[in-house]
Amino acid sequence: MPTSVAGAIDFHPLRPRPEADAIEIVDQTRLPHEWLTVRIATADEAAHAIRTMQVRGAPLIGATAAYGLALALRADASDANLGAARAQLLATRPTAVNLRWALDRCVRAVESLPPSARAAAAWREADAIAAEDVTTNRAIGEHGLRLIEHLAAHTQPVQILTHCNAGALATLAFGTATAPIYLAHEAGITVHVWVSETRPRLQGAKLTTWELRARGVPHTLIVDAAGAALMRQGRVDIVLVGADRVAANGDVCNKIGTYEKALAAKDNGVPFYAAVPSTTIDWTIADGAGIPIEERAADEVLLLGGDASIAPPGTAVANPAFDVTPARLLTGIITERGVCAPGKLRTLFPE
Amino acid sequence: MPTSVAGAIDFHPLRPRPEADAIEIVDQTRLPHEWLTVRIATADEAAHAIRTMQVRGAPLIGATAAYGLALALRADASDANLGAARAQLLATRPTAVNLRWALDRCVRAVESLPPSARAAAAWREADAIAAEDVTTNRAIGEHGLRLIEHLAAHTQPVQILTHCNAGALATLAFGTATAPIYLAHEAGITVHVWVSETRPRLQGAKLTTWELRARGVPHTLIVDAAGAALMRQGRVDIVLVGADRVAANGDVCNKIGTYEKALAAKDNGVPFYAAVPSTTIDWTIADGAGIPIEERAADEVLLLGGDASIAPPGTAVANPAFDVTPARLLTGIITERGVCAPGKLRTLFPE
Repeated sequence: MPTSVAGAIDFHPLRPRPEADAIEIVDQTRLPHEWLTVRIATADEAAHAIRTMQVRGAPLIGATAAYGLALALRADASDANLGAARAQLLATRPTAVNLRWALDRCVRAVESLPPSARAAAAWREADAIAAEDVTTNRAIGEHGLRLIEHLAAHTQPVQILTHCNAGALATLAFGTATAPIYLAHEAGITVHVWVSETRPRLQGAKLTTWELRARGVPHTLIVDAAGAALMRQGRVDIVLVGADRVAANGDVCNKIGTYEKALAAKDNGVPFYAAVPSTTIDWTIADGAGIPIEERAADEVLLLGGDASIAPPGTAVANPAFDVTPARLLTGIITERGVCAPGKLRTLFPE
Repeated sequence: MPTSVAGAIDFHPLRPRPEADAIEIVDQTRLPHEWLTVRIATADEAAHAIRTMQVRGAPLIGATAAYGLALALRADASDANLGAARAQLLATRPTAVNLRWALDRCVRAVESLPPSARAAAAWREADAIAAEDVTTNRAIGEHGLRLIEHLAAHTQPVQILTHCNAGALATLAFGTATAPIYLAHEAGITVHVWVSETRPRLQGAKLTTWELRARGVPHTLIVDAAGAALMRQGRVDIVLVGADRVAANGDVCNKIGTYEKALAAKDNGVPFYAAVPSTTIDWTIADGAGIPIEERAADEVLLLGGDASIAPPGTAVANPAFDVTPARLLTGIITERGVCAPGKLRTLFPE
C-alpha cells in the first residue's frame, strides 16, 4: 500500500486486518491530496465511513458493509444485534443495491449458525465477497477489453469518456468501468480518458484522475457539461460508466449526469456501456422508476473547498446524487459473464 | 444603483458617466459577495474588463466594447488609433458576435467623420447600442412572456430551467433569457427557476441566483448534471437560455452544457428556447461549425474558491467555454421581433 500519493501503483481502498479485529480503509475524502488509512473496528465505524463517503462506489460500499456486519457480530452475535447491525448499515446509503445484497448474503450465511460461530462465518463471507469482487472486475475488464481492441483496430488513441469514479477506488481492485481501460493500457493499446469532474463531490477530478495517474494512463479533466460537446466533435470513441443499481430491464442508475452523457452518446453514434458486476443488478425492480434516488446535502453544492458559499446566503439547492439512464440509450452492459444488450440481462443471468 | 448586495432591485451592470469621461461597470467576478463598481476610462481598461470577465454576457460585452472604442477616440481620434482600439477590443473574447457587431457599428458611425467629431459620435453610438439593448430585451421579454402564459394556463408554478447567466447582469437591463421570467413574475404568474450552476465559472450559482433573488423570483440551484434528470422527472416545463452567437441556420452557440440540456429537453418533450437579440445572430456563418469556441484556462476548472487544486498536480485540463446546440434540438428562438422556428430566422429578419 502506498504511504504517499505520488508513485502509488498498487493501492487497495480496503484491506481486511483480521489479526487486529478490524479492516483498514482509505479515507477517500482526503484524496487526491493525502492517502490516509483509517482503522474500522466496529459496525458504527463502518456505517460512519460509508455515510460520510470515506468509502464510496457500489462494490466497495457492499464489501465494507459486509465486514461491518462481521465486526458487529464479533462484539455481539445475538439475533438482535445481527438485525440491528444490518439495519444500521443498510440505512447508510439508499441507492447502491450492492449494500443490501452484501448484507443479506452475510445474514443468510450466519443466521442459522449458533452465535459462537457467527462472527467467523460472517468474516469469511465478507472475505468471499471481497475476493469475488476482484475476480468479477477482472472478468468485466476482459470483456470490455474486447470492445476497446475493436476500436483500437480503427483508431488510436482510443478516446474513452468516463463519469464519476467507477474505478479501482470504488471496488476492491481494478474498478468496473476502469477495468477494461487498465487491461487495454497494459496490453499496449494507446488510450486516452476524458474524466468528467462530477459535481458536486468531484469524484472524477479527485479520484479518477488520481488512479489513472497512478497507473500511467493518459487522461484529461473536463467539466461535466463538456462531455457532450466532445462527443459532437468526434473526440470520444466510447463511453464507459459504472452503476449503483441496474433494474431488471436494463435501466441504469448511476451518478447524476450519466443520463445526459448517454443522450449525447446516442445523438452522436458513440457507443455507451455501463460496466457492472451482477451484484449491482436489482432483479426485484422492473425498471428505473423504482430505484430510490438519494438526495444529499445542499452544502455539497454550495461549499467548494471550504470557501464561502458559491451562491447568495440562503439559496435553495436540490442535490440528487444519481439519475436513471433508460436502457434504450445504452449500447450494452458489460458484466462478469460478458456483454449484452441492456434489455437482455437475463440471457447472461438466467433465473 | 445598490451599494450593498442585499436589497438590490434596480441594478445596472454598466452606467455611462460621460461627465467623467468614463463608464462604470460592476466587477461581476466579485458577485454574489460584493457589488463593486469599477471606473473604466480607457480602451485598455475596457479590454481588461472584458478579458477578465468583470463584464460578461454577449450584449454587455458588446456595449462595453462600444464605450471602450469611444473612450479610445477621446484620447486619440486618428484612423490609426481607431483601428488599433477596434483590434484590441475585438481580441478580448472570440465567441460572442455582439462584440464584433458593436465595434463595427461604432467604426461605421465615425470613420467618415473628421477626427474632432469622432469621439462624441462614437459615444452617441454606444449610447444608442445600450439603449437599444434595453428595448430589445424588453421586447424579447414580451414575446417570451406569451410562452410562459400559455404554460401557466395549464400548470403553476411554471418550472423554468436556465443555464449560465443570460440575465440582467449579462445585458444593460432585463436580460435575454430572464426577460420573459421577470415579466411573468411581475404579471403575477407563479414561476420557479431551476438554476444550473454552470461550471467552471459558476455564473448560474453566482450571478443568476443573485439577480433572481434581488427580484424576488423563486429559484433552486442545481449542479449542471442534474438538469436532465429533472426534465425526465417532469419537473421542468420550459428551458430558456441565451446565446453568444447564433448561426444563420439557427444553430446556437452558448455556454458549455447548453447542448446537453437541449438533448434532454428533446428526449422529454420539454420546449427549449434560446432568447437572443438579433445582434447575436451571425448571418455570415451558415451553421454552428463555423463558430470559434473559446478555450479558457485550466485553472478555471482546477482551482475552486482559491483552494488547492481539485485534481492531482499537473492534471491536463480541457476547458471549452461554449458548445453548439444544433437547430434541430430547439423548439424556437425568441427575438425582439417575435418567436420563430430556429431554421426560420430570415422570416423575422429579411435581408
